Amino acid sequence: VKTGDLQTPSLLVDVDRLQGNIARMAAIAREAGVDLRPHGKTHKTPQIGRLQLAAGSRGLTVAKLGEADVFADAGIADLFIAFPLWGDAKWEHLCRLAERARVRVAADSFEVLEGISRTAVRHGLRVPVRLEVDSGFGRCGLQSPEEVRALAQRMSALPGVELVGLMGFGGQSYAEATAEGVQRVARAEAVQLVTIAELLRADGIAVDEISAGSTPTAPYVAQVPGITEIRPGTYVFSDRDQVALGWGTLDDCALTLLVTVVSRPTPTRAVIDGGTKTFGADQAARVPGWGVVRGRPEVTVAWLSEEHGNLEVPPDAHLPIGSRLEIIPNHCCGALAMHDRLVAVSGDEVVEVWPIAARGKVQ
Amino acid sequence: VKTGDLQTPSLLVDVDRLQGNIARMAAIAREAGVDLRPHGKTHKTPQIGRLQLAAGSRGLTVAKLGEADVFADAGIADLFIAFPLWGDAKWEHLCRLAERARVRVAADSFEVLEGISRTAVRHGLRVPVRLEVDSGFGRCGLQSPEEVRALAQRMSALPGVELVGLMGFGGQSYAEATAEGVQRVARAEAVQLVTIAELLRADGIAVDEISAGSTPTAPYVAQVPGITEIRPGTYVFSDRDQVALGWGTLDDCALTLLVTVVSRPTPTRAVIDGGTKTFGADQAARVPGWGVVRGRPEVTVAWLSEEHGNLEVPPDAHLPIGSRLEIIPNHCCGALAMHDRLVAVSGDEVVEVWPIAARGKVQ
Repeated sequence: VKTGDLQTPSLLVDVDRLQGNIARMAAIAREAGVDLRPHGKTHKTPQIGRLQLAAGSRGLTVAKLGEADVFADAGIADLFIAFPLWGDAKWEHLCRLAERARVRVAADSFEVLEGISRTAVRHGLRVPVRLEVDSGFGRCGLQSPEEVRALAQRMSALPGVELVGLMGFGGQSYAEATAEGVQRVARAEAVQLVTIAELLRADGIAVDEISAGSTPTAPYVAQVPGITEIRPGTYVFSDRDQVALGWGTLDDCALTLLVTVVSRPTPTRAVIDGGTKTFGADQAARVPGWGVVRGRPEVTVAWLSEEHGNLEVPPDAHLPIGSRLEIIPNHCCGALAMHDRLVAVSGDEVVEVWPIAARGKVQ
Repeated sequence: VKTGDLQTPSLLVDVDRLQGNIARMAAIAREAGVDLRPHGKTHKTPQIGRLQLAAGSRGLTVAKLGEADVFADAGIADLFIAFPLWGDAKWEHLCRLAERARVRVAADSFEVLEGISRTAVRHGLRVPVRLEVDSGFGRCGLQSPEEVRALAQRMSALPGVELVGLMGFGGQSYAEATAEGVQRVARAEAVQLVTIAELLRADGIAVDEISAGSTPTAPYVAQVPGITEIRPGTYVFSDRDQVALGWGTLDDCALTLLVTVVSRPTPTRAVIDGGTKTFGADQAARVPGWGVVRGRPEVTVAWLSEEHGNLEVPPDAHLPIGSRLEIIPNHCCGALAMHDRLVAVSGDEVVEVWPIAARGKVQ
């Protein structure tokens, strides 16, 4: 089967570019001597997780227990749930998962730790926990070294939970305008975590795992002594936003939308059969518009409604109704979340169709 | 089962509010003497389509053949595909659908009509077509009365396709700042279609179906003599954006996200277990932010990342970790597209769980 035989819109992943991205981040981690635990939220696809493991990743990061189940079912059995879990049902779920996979979980409050502790004791488990530190992004996380030390101390009295490390996430790197800015955020995130780990060690608390970095920051974070793990997600596909942030070139972007021109209302307007319910509605932090048309620099994706995409074209461009285009989205995670399957291609050859099995696992 | 027993995040639809919205638009159509053909893209859920039909809707509108299949399978057999279809596979699909359901399709080019014609002839069918007119939104559609007349003339020579009507979509109403602005767009859309229909009739071409209007414009469009059908979608749930545009009040909004506070990093920040992959990433045309917390006006949804939502709370607000909140999204269509199921509730009682069966039917 050729890509020309596919119906549109289709979500394509170029396996050669995919493997290139996977290899490149694996090399960065290997050379820096840190573990690589890619975030599975980006691809939600067991086949891609397995490629990451085959290239040397230790396991995956996930945001949801439902995602963790899908990966564990697929034999990916070393999982970090980088999200605070609340409620008996979730703590039960976590413990059942911990009985069949190697699981770590993030926490930033005594309340959450107490719940996990209570449930883990009932299961006869000791759940490894990484405390989350706010790296300045202003989302989850403990706010100061003192807060981390105090929670680590209180936690040491709880059975069923074990402090194994720290995590940070410098998400503010996405708003930085220059490579130097991204680097500065990365360094600050890493140094903060390493410093806090030293304080905990001085308190007699062993902290072995210091996990930091997303795609833009991971290559820098990995260089800071003391960091043991990086958790990039988007690198696996890359997208227009990541290219603007410094990860490879547009030619390295592995994920595209294959679409068809279905209407040519005016000499400068073409409408395609994909909108926000095909590309995702996320606009990227650093790049305007909605995507880049591969190989057609004269065509711009002007705006999207839900099921239509409006392209602007020069009046003399040859782009008749029925033309097929491949469009690199601004943000690959958002695009992927709209689809049930990912068509793996090599050149114009369809290699396989991968179910996006962890899609919709919102809990 | 009570809503308190549900895991979070969950997408809830309040069936009483849902039925209220369905009844209200049905009454508007009935009183104006026009057909109501709600857009199924909003709910993608056969159970809701059946409620709309039970309240007097003639059928549904859809954007995708895959959505049409889901509704036809559920016994909703009068469907308008309001999207130009291109390619042999889609034309075949359309004809197979037309063999088991009453189908109309939109078109705005001779190329598309020719393809449908060729395939329909092979199937021994005559497919009813509505020509799309650009209502000033600047997306699909013929650009002038002359273009419509010319295409209608050329089309009359094609076997297998039958011109039955016109459609418009004044999507620019979403950018209007006042009710008067919305009304002006509605009136312009309706008058344009009715005027063109008269021209076609003067040419000896029968045009029986004049279809216009979305949720903000439908109540006005329905009043214009000559309009035979309205196609609102979002009204069925309503959302913060529609309320700003004039459809009911926040209390009429039927769709909410049930979420849990999972972290309280600071006295003024609470983090919930839902982000853009729970609420959708669409920001609304007319309202800032990401949603309204039902019953907690002092809490604002400040920003979302993919799996986290950041709330701003007054320092003295009682909102401990584990608190559950119901949040009305800015744009219900975007929220719904992120979920596999919709929990139908009445008060705090879970009535049923509805699969969002047409979700992910991107083709």
